[in-house]
Amino acid sequence: MITFKIKTPEQEVKTYLQEQIDNLTKPKGALGRLEDIAMQIGTIQQSLHPKLTNPHHIVFAGDHGIVDEGVSAAPKAVTYQMIANFWNGGAGINFLCRQHGFELQVVDAGVDYNFTDKDPIINAKIRKGTRNFLHEAAMIQEEMYQAIELGAEQVSKIHQTGCNVISFGEMGIGNTSPSAMWMHYFTNISLTDCVGAGCDHTGDIVTHKLKVLSQAKENYKGDGTTEDIMAYFGGYEMVMAVGAMLKAAELKMTILIDGFIMTNCLLAATKLYPEVQDYAIFSHQGDEAGHKLVLEYLKAKPILHLDLRLGEGTGALCAYPIVDSAVRMLNEMGTFKEVKVSKYF
Amino acid sequence: MITFKIKTPEQEVKTYLQEQIDNLTKPKGALGRLEDIAMQIGTIQQSLHPKLTNPHHIVFAGDHGIVDEGVSAAPKAVTYQMIANFWNGGAGINFLCRQHGFELQVVDAGVDYNFTDKDPIINAKIRKGTRNFLHEAAMIQEEMYQAIELGAEQVSKIHQTGCNVISFGEMGIGNTSPSAMWMHYFTNISLTDCVGAGCDHTGDIVTHKLKVLSQAKENYKGDGTTEDIMAYFGGYEMVMAVGAMLKAAELKMTILIDGFIMTNCLLAATKLYPEVQDYAIFSHQGDEAGHKLVLEYLKAKPILHLDLRLGEGTGALCAYPIVDSAVRMLNEMGTFKEVKVSKYF
Repeated sequence: MITFKIKTPEQEVKTYLQEQIDNLTKPKGALGRLEDIAMQIGTIQQSLHPKLTNPHHIVFAGDHGIVDEGVSAAPKAVTYQMIANFWNGGAGINFLCRQHGFELQVVDAGVDYNFTDKDPIINAKIRKGTRNFLHEAAMIQEEMYQAIELGAEQVSKIHQTGCNVISFGEMGIGNTSPSAMWMHYFTNISLTDCVGAGCDHTGDIVTHKLKVLSQAKENYKGDGTTEDIMAYFGGYEMVMAVGAMLKAAELKMTILIDGFIMTNCLLAATKLYPEVQDYAIFSHQGDEAGHKLVLEYLKAKPILHLDLRLGEGTGALCAYPIVDSAVRMLNEMGTFKEVKVSKYF
Repeated sequence: MITFKIKTPEQEVKTYLQEQIDNLTKPKGALGRLEDIAMQIGTIQQSLHPKLTNPHHIVFAGDHGIVDEGVSAAPKAVTYQMIANFWNGGAGINFLCRQHGFELQVVDAGVDYNFTDKDPIINAKIRKGTRNFLHEAAMIQEEMYQAIELGAEQVSKIHQTGCNVISFGEMGIGNTSPSAMWMHYFTNISLTDCVGAGCDHTGDIVTHKLKVLSQAKENYKGDGTTEDIMAYFGGYEMVMAVGAMLKAAELKMTILIDGFIMTNCLLAATKLYPEVQDYAIFSHQGDEAGHKLVLEYLKAKPILHLDLRLGEGTGALCAYPIVDSAVRMLNEMGTFKEVKVSKYF
């Protein structure tokens, strides 16, 4: 059973937030998206002066049995190699975390590699990679529940350090395939429209990938429930992110949603608890084919369009300063009451 | 005479920059726009490891005679009132400068107000507001040259402090009108498509504004040269920004271009020295009607779309952390040579 206590924030504060935003020394609405974000975070925190404290970023990592079918341009080994790169501070997500003051945690959800106890990775390994969902369920139900729980646990620990804003990323060669399957089943958008090139900039791989995933769909004989779809096609890192998002919403944290894979994790989370979306800020729309469509399905308006397709959570981190600006706007701008400026709309 | 020595940067370094970017531990092109920006700044600085140092933001302020014709929803007095708000740190641009470590300077290019020597504003006042261009030239030619020179002078001083990245904003009630005139004459796009609502979110003002500006066009009997258009319709703060941009390009600084007004200043600058654009990063596309069109004319791809319409340079500041990320990417990411990651495209 997946059980969280997630509530839509009380909406009454919105009236007061709108009044405050309209009294800042600027024309009405002139700070555009910053005003929307301020409204959302003020509502989450039920405060006219919200604060973002001790930001954390978790990269969930896992491998995927489906990679055996040649659905990814990169070899599986890149998953653990990149984890070592995270430790050394040389990956994309590292410089962004340093730039924006995020504490970075890397969680082994199910990497096909034997890390040692000395390695600076949080061990939440469920199995060395999922099974190949072309032929069988990627994970059994118990593993899925375990992943949800372990994701939630990481967030609880981080919340106890005083963190109230969290972002999630992933490292898992092949994980655009399970993401496409989730998207297809959870939105009813055709599989063709859910499948993109992943990290392969040439796009050559798409035809083969679509063929494999279509066959996997044909082979699937499950009951079509959210939990079954999550387990049958999902990655451990993805299910763990779902658990993490649900716990973050339960704890009333602001959640930054990264690209295609994390958007599909949020999508899965909304199928369990629609209220989770009240806590989610969509940071970036990448050029993975289905991303635009899944964002539209969620009626989500991403902050950035930077053509990123690296994963790791890089889109979420790039958007953070704008989220921070929105909060600073509420806390630092003067109001027409305080200063002598003719109110100009 | 307007004379600057602006050169297109040597292009040879691009080969080496591309090689370096493609060797960073990520799939080729996976950091999207960050890679483009890194390429541009690396080329400006002729370096594989560019740096952004001592960033500055200048707000040029001025008033406009054309406001007498009711082309702005806000009263003229707001220009000097907002300047006092800048001093107090309560405006939109203030919190953004604090957030991103920018030194803020406010320059009186031609505000219709008597500041005192004790006021924390840089006095470059040419006149207390331009003349009404419905009936006569907004400024005489000598004033235009003076404004160019004073803008250039500000940038020279700032450059001497070790600054190599600069952004410009404006405060000038009514200045979307002269901007629309510049855009129309410099791009040949119809006046209708150049005229927007300015700070008036209701849009009620557009019809009247277009009527006034069409009449001004009919009344104009000048020679249509870039210099004459700048002087006849321009604001002092706008011409000063043109001079500032040209000097910044001469000094090989990276220039952040803000919204509609600053984009039209850059447009004017390119009519004098097309090479200035090599140094310009377009930060934000706002919802002022003509902004999209002038950006397309310049083949410019703005970083952000945040529906901002505040001016002051707020769009440029919001985009800065992404520009900073691009530079950090070059300097801080590991390469496939240094770490053991299989090169995955």
